Amino acid sequence: MSQSVPEYVRDAHAIYRESFAIIRSEADLSRVPADLEPLAVRVAHACGMPDVIDDLMFSADAGSAGKAAVEAGAPFLCDCRMVADGVTRARFAKQNPVLCTLYDDGVPELAKEMGTTRSAAALELWRPHLEGAIVAIGNAPTALFRLLEMLDAGAPRPALILGFPVGFVGAAESKQALAEDSRGVPFVAVRGRRGGSAMAAAALNALGAERH
Amino acid sequence: MSQSVPEYVRDAHAIYRESFAIIRSEADLSRVPADLEPLAVRVAHACGMPDVIDDLMFSADAGSAGKAAVEAGAPFLCDCRMVADGVTRARFAKQNPVLCTLYDDGVPELAKEMGTTRSAAALELWRPHLEGAIVAIGNAPTALFRLLEMLDAGAPRPALILGFPVGFVGAAESKQALAEDSRGVPFVAVRGRRGGSAMAAAALNALGAERH
Repeated sequence: MSQSVPEYVRDAHAIYRESFAIIRSEADLSRVPADLEPLAVRVAHACGMPDVIDDLMFSADAGSAGKAAVEAGAPFLCDCRMVADGVTRARFAKQNPVLCTLYDDGVPELAKEMGTTRSAAALELWRPHLEGAIVAIGNAPTALFRLLEMLDAGAPRPALILGFPVGFVGAAESKQALAEDSRGVPFVAVRGRRGGSAMAAAALNALGAERH
Repeated sequence: MSQSVPEYVRDAHAIYRESFAIIRSEADLSRVPADLEPLAVRVAHACGMPDVIDDLMFSADAGSAGKAAVEAGAPFLCDCRMVADGVTRARFAKQNPVLCTLYDDGVPELAKEMGTTRSAAALELWRPHLEGAIVAIGNAPTALFRLLEMLDAGAPRPALILGFPVGFVGAAESKQALAEDSRGVPFVAVRGRRGGSAMAAAALNALGAERH
């Protein structure tokens, strides 16, 4: 005999409100600057894990730098399409351009030439947009490593780096390298293997306007 | 003084191989049927957490049902765009259609009419495609609850449900409801709050052909 579907909350606003209340009740936000709290809560919301907030690493100026870049209409440079698609356009009145160059013409060939991943090679196409941009890396450790190399070689400086590559090879290491020396660029990252496009998109969205 | 960027693996195939080897060395796969092992490993890969495999719930026929549906060219019905975009098209020789109806015309109005979320209302537009489809829910608990209600009311039956809604309100409950009574439909889901579009897309991709 079939069980019936249990009662559930169907109101999107109520779901958001209740979710954020649960996160705030379970997470330790004492370490997080006030202007990064919405970001911390949204990152936890994206993955269902309040303790991810304990693993957030950030520079003190990340919140203000992010807000200013959003206000200035800065582009969002995303390492994968899932991050770009996760951006809630309605939160950004300045219609900040959202770019992902991973599938652009020539990237596979460039990757071969450079002896690296397509994710890292795709950053070459960021160069004209990099100055003052918000970089959101939600997939590839090699993209974050490559960004640091480009900065060391004198590439234009983004306004903020959101470092959320995920996985078992290079994710923890690339984020540690960013946190140890972000080359003077404001940053937020999550320590360790955890990360992903949903967290990266949530961090971006937190810099926009609340819609409710 | 700036630190230099540490050495890192730049070969995409090597990164995959090493990642999957790490997951297999750390995870307990003894409980997972052989034909779901690739799915389990890919889901762990997508989130950086081998222990997520301990939380996988599944019916014994999920792997074979998924493979057969893929072979039959079944459509993939995704609750959000991030899942749809995460599907690696090259893995599916039958060019299975990938559908996400969340942003279709009329969905906001339908949600108001139905008194539910847009994510749940969007499932109404799945009806012509539901028979034999693979459903991948990577965001909204309300979408999974709604699917169960539709099945109880006699909707066409999908071939497989991949249940990976994430979050604090309804995610654990909707997946528990699926696992307790999947209405005879083969399923894979992750217990608890964890989930998300990356895991759902990874589960789908695992049903396709290996590219390396």
